[in-house]
Amino acid sequence: MIISTPHSYSDGDTQFIGRLVYDEDGSGQRPGILVIPAFGGLGNFEIERAEELAALGYIVLAVDYYGEGAQASGPEQASEWMRALNADRPLIAQRITAAFDEIRSLPMVDPARIGCMGYCFGGKISLDLARTGADLCAAVSLHGLFDAPPMPRQKMKAAVLACHGWDDPLATPEAVVTFAAEMTEICPDWQLLAFGHTGHAFTNPAANAPGMAFSEAANRRSWENLTRFFADKLGK
Amino acid sequence: MIISTPHSYSDGDTQFIGRLVYDEDGSGQRPGILVIPAFGGLGNFEIERAEELAALGYIVLAVDYYGEGAQASGPEQASEWMRALNADRPLIAQRITAAFDEIRSLPMVDPARIGCMGYCFGGKISLDLARTGADLCAAVSLHGLFDAPPMPRQKMKAAVLACHGWDDPLATPEAVVTFAAEMTEICPDWQLLAFGHTGHAFTNPAANAPGMAFSEAANRRSWENLTRFFADKLGK
Repeated sequence: MIISTPHSYSDGDTQFIGRLVYDEDGSGQRPGILVIPAFGGLGNFEIERAEELAALGYIVLAVDYYGEGAQASGPEQASEWMRALNADRPLIAQRITAAFDEIRSLPMVDPARIGCMGYCFGGKISLDLARTGADLCAAVSLHGLFDAPPMPRQKMKAAVLACHGWDDPLATPEAVVTFAAEMTEICPDWQLLAFGHTGHAFTNPAANAPGMAFSEAANRRSWENLTRFFADKLGK
Repeated sequence: MIISTPHSYSDGDTQFIGRLVYDEDGSGQRPGILVIPAFGGLGNFEIERAEELAALGYIVLAVDYYGEGAQASGPEQASEWMRALNADRPLIAQRITAAFDEIRSLPMVDPARIGCMGYCFGGKISLDLARTGADLCAAVSLHGLFDAPPMPRQKMKAAVLACHGWDDPLATPEAVVTFAAEMTEICPDWQLLAFGHTGHAFTNPAANAPGMAFSEAANRRSWENLTRFFADKLGK
């Protein structure tokens, strides 16, 4: 049976309330995955994805990056929170590293087999964890933002899969080319899966704005590639 | 059992000797796939891929585009032949249309469920068949060249999957961005799967030059996506 329970961890004085999701019928140390939410904070959407991954045998920590498990009341507040946190990329790295340290410390997790994935702003945070050079096997970005942090570049250990809507107004073709050059410099194994006629937020069934709409095909194709990528890189 | 037999067809006075590959244990009308070879002409490499697709239940016509089943004696002759044919993109369209008409005419093929795929120069030809607006479901390019033909643009019926090595010297990031814009204009459903640290010819176990080398990972990932794409689009 899949267990889904609030899970607290901290970075200094900041308390985070994520969610730990796993199959209680599993045994031994299993690979772990961080699920990093979109800009609204950890909600049902990400917890459902965590449950799907748990059903595949992963130990999943769904991440809180605003602290106290905060969820934005709507897109305006979410944008405001995102802008504030995005202005401090070293703090992002610190907070996602706290989540990484937490999942690695769990007795049922194999600390040598950790992946992460994130949506939208969380996709950027997923890449930012890999950019720290963390001892991470795999990082996935789903309609994430590609701009590199204003920090010294380090070699990544993680392989990267970026699933991207070509029409995403937040990640233009120019940003894709810049990102590819960055990955070529620092990432040992990277892939970009770009979908035509697809914008931002393509995994979100509620998204239906111009340039930011759900796509059944892109959602399915990205999930197929994500699950196979994790199976490959985390040894499932 | 997989049957693999030379198969002649023609375009006006030009005779082609392709190869028809299928599972004789199948029954009824089945989806068809054209396998379009790299610039050396139809050889064992492409015939083996045709056999793999036939084992999945497709009727496969491996294509001859130089005529008379010609195979180049080596890369220099292949380059010469490719340059000559590439200079006449309307002739390419005509020749690949002859192959398309041929596979659709086979009694065991469902003419409403045809796909095509090609390697290198054959990847371009695969795209060029889709660019004719042919009644084709799916076109795949594997380390193909992206330059559009100097012909009027038409709306495609086919979905497109382009598997691409980001370091391919024959298809630069700029060519990718131009191709994406073209596909956005004419193709109803396109995807680009780009592999980092991967050049041209990544499916070819014999390729080991700078910028043109075999990649086990890119080869495997492209084949996984190709087979799922065909299954999705050809209803297998």
